[in-house]
Amino acid sequence: MLRISEIFGPTIQGEGAVIGQPTVFVRAGGCDYRCAWCDTLHAVDTEYRHTWAKMTSEEVMAEIERLSGGVPLTVSLSGGNPAIQQFGELIEMGKTKGYRFACETQGSVAKDWFAELDPLILSPKPPSSKHVVDWDQFDACIAAAGDAPRVLKMVIFDDRDYDWARDVARRYPDMPLYIQPGNHTPPPPDDDDAEVDIDGIMTRYEWLIDKALADHWYTPTILPQLHVLIWGNKRGV
Amino acid sequence: MLRISEIFGPTIQGEGAVIGQPTVFVRAGGCDYRCAWCDTLHAVDTEYRHTWAKMTSEEVMAEIERLSGGVPLTVSLSGGNPAIQQFGELIEMGKTKGYRFACETQGSVAKDWFAELDPLILSPKPPSSKHVVDWDQFDACIAAAGDAPRVLKMVIFDDRDYDWARDVARRYPDMPLYIQPGNHTPPPPDDDDAEVDIDGIMTRYEWLIDKALADHWYTPTILPQLHVLIWGNKRGV
Repeated sequence: MLRISEIFGPTIQGEGAVIGQPTVFVRAGGCDYRCAWCDTLHAVDTEYRHTWAKMTSEEVMAEIERLSGGVPLTVSLSGGNPAIQQFGELIEMGKTKGYRFACETQGSVAKDWFAELDPLILSPKPPSSKHVVDWDQFDACIAAAGDAPRVLKMVIFDDRDYDWARDVARRYPDMPLYIQPGNHTPPPPDDDDAEVDIDGIMTRYEWLIDKALADHWYTPTILPQLHVLIWGNKRGV
Repeated sequence: MLRISEIFGPTIQGEGAVIGQPTVFVRAGGCDYRCAWCDTLHAVDTEYRHTWAKMTSEEVMAEIERLSGGVPLTVSLSGGNPAIQQFGELIEMGKTKGYRFACETQGSVAKDWFAELDPLILSPKPPSSKHVVDWDQFDACIAAAGDAPRVLKMVIFDDRDYDWARDVARRYPDMPLYIQPGNHTPPPPDDDDAEVDIDGIMTRYEWLIDKALADHWYTPTILPQLHVLIWGNKRGV
């Protein structure tokens, strides 16, 4: 059985490698991390475990098909950390029907179904998260992806995160790289439409662009979180 | 000699296939179109011809290298219509130094140097532009690109543009597709920082997302013009 916090869409993917693509999100419940600025605590904190549905892969697939009207699109597996669950069966089932599966994970747990993704988005967490990346585990995730497309995405809140991101980028020179500013006004888990500081977010986005360009660091694609610009902290869009 | 309206950057590409990528823009002066809502009239209207510099390919390349600090990045050839000029020499020169060249054109004039691009962005103009696309010329542009990556980008202002875009997409099922709402408050050519209606632009972006998703039209990537969200109508960013 899968533990599912939410299934919603179709909407557009708001960030990273498949930004702007019509997407149904499957948000897994449960996470091995507790990032200081987590923006999806309702899918992470076990206090909200009672809101997570236990579903079979067939039930999840049926809901994806219902939402998408049976027309294939990109399904984004997110969380929480989807990599602590078994999504292989769902992916296999969906791919035979023409659906494409992307997955974002911090890279702390490797799964063999990573090899079926398009793409695997590895998002190691920067120092401001208060987590320390286990690079052996991270490398195991890359290895598990095999020939599947894989990209690196990093959220950057401050100068220390930025310097760390540059080091990580040097470590993986061949992976397409996406960086984005963090949402410093994430929603509390019990409020699905909390106030968001859009001006502050745009200022941080400009800061990140200016900093990378001033350093002649041209390898990352620098993007905002479009869904936050459009819908703020509203959930289910 | 090349007729150049502006060379600026590095900044980020604000739209389309290479959205978010650090970019130096080379804006060609002169255009065979006069779109009703043109947002770069200062590079189109011959009344502003006196502001366009005559430069050799070597001079343009030297300016690109100066702006980028000699570190290779994506150079975006835009306009006006860059396809009415000879950019082959510049592209050849830049590629030997590691620079990558993207080019956006309406697809009215084919050039052999399209085959050197990564990518060629073909942006046929919708009915609201008051132009009628010559599809033979457009197909000649696709043929000229050969094996170079090429994508389709369409600006959509209203229902009629949307229906037209769906027809165009059916005509080119194998080309990656990007759609975006237009800026209905484009700057007049003699004002490089005119007021822009960001709320209206976001409303139009949401309209386009909702419309495509309601139609189960999942093939286009749906993006805003990020540079307008960040910098409004300001020129040179």
